[in-house]
Amino acid sequence: MPRSVDHAECRRRIVRSVWSLIGRRGLAAVTMRDLTAEAGYADGGLSPYFRNKDEILQAAFQYAFPFDNTNARATTSIGDRGGLSALRQLCLEVMPLDEMRLQEACVGIAFADRAQCDVRMAATYRTAVGQWREQMRMYLRQARVAGEITTGRPDALVVDTLLTTLVGFQTAAVPAYPGMSAARQTQILDGLLGT
Amino acid sequence: MPRSVDHAECRRRIVRSVWSLIGRRGLAAVTMRDLTAEAGYADGGLSPYFRNKDEILQAAFQYAFPFDNTNARATTSIGDRGGLSALRQLCLEVMPLDEMRLQEACVGIAFADRAQCDVRMAATYRTAVGQWREQMRMYLRQARVAGEITTGRPDALVVDTLLTTLVGFQTAAVPAYPGMSAARQTQILDGLLGT
Repeated sequence: MPRSVDHAECRRRIVRSVWSLIGRRGLAAVTMRDLTAEAGYADGGLSPYFRNKDEILQAAFQYAFPFDNTNARATTSIGDRGGLSALRQLCLEVMPLDEMRLQEACVGIAFADRAQCDVRMAATYRTAVGQWREQMRMYLRQARVAGEITTGRPDALVVDTLLTTLVGFQTAAVPAYPGMSAARQTQILDGLLGT
Repeated sequence: MPRSVDHAECRRRIVRSVWSLIGRRGLAAVTMRDLTAEAGYADGGLSPYFRNKDEILQAAFQYAFPFDNTNARATTSIGDRGGLSALRQLCLEVMPLDEMRLQEACVGIAFADRAQCDVRMAATYRTAVGQWREQMRMYLRQARVAGEITTGRPDALVVDTLLTTLVGFQTAAVPAYPGMSAARQTQILDGLLGT
């Protein structure tokens, strides 16, 4: 295997083994030493792969969210559905409704926080949001054609409303915001979808 | 002035002078030394008032949000209005529509991130959200009586939907999420309020 492929695979393996530690303990409370130990490396062993916590956070966000975990789950659970049913399912996969998705949300919020003041992280965040936006617009167009959604609001506005709500769930849902149970989040989503 | 009052006043003065630095530069990039310099103290001068960055963040959140900045502005701008108009105005004051509210949002997101894994911060967050929830429910009841809002959804669900959206605006609006301009945020709010 060429060295660069090997290197990329090692990075992926490390991220897969450490991302949820950030979600469980919070970025501020986790040190490079903790992450190194969690990945099963000796002290300093991650330095060929990641220079600092921010680089790991960036990779963890990309792993947890747009490119791996959430989207792989959505692809499976949506299957060959389209329209309103697919749109709703995609939202559900992003919402922190169980322990796994809660940890993803914690990584997402740590990343959003750092992205406020870091140009590179902001670009990654925009890419992730942009992918979801395109996918949601596609399902929404299908839902219009099928007559499942008839609101007079433009598609872009409907999608931005949903995206804002999803980000809000991730930030505030749990544990900072009890009462915002899985059932409550689903009620809110269904209210927005008019279902 | 009794010593304890003096102490509390010093803390308030320090927070007033440093809170926006957290919003402008991001919590991770700001050191205790930066905060101490911004407050005009010599090195170590903040230690009688705050033990660490988290204590300053906690105070900055309380200053920026529930108890001072935002709510003082809302009290002024709402005046003696009630009902739908007051509900809308309260939301607008929380939304990151200008530079000041953007900085408040950055403090809010840094705090929400830390609150995911810190029991004390989570309690403060809940208190802040709880205050807004009560105020919004009051205005919503008035809006129902005046016939301004006629949705069949329960008040608590309407309020939770609005709160989730506000938190979403704060997290994702700007700079991580361009396109979510002030005009766009207002369109989304007005869509949710049915206005």
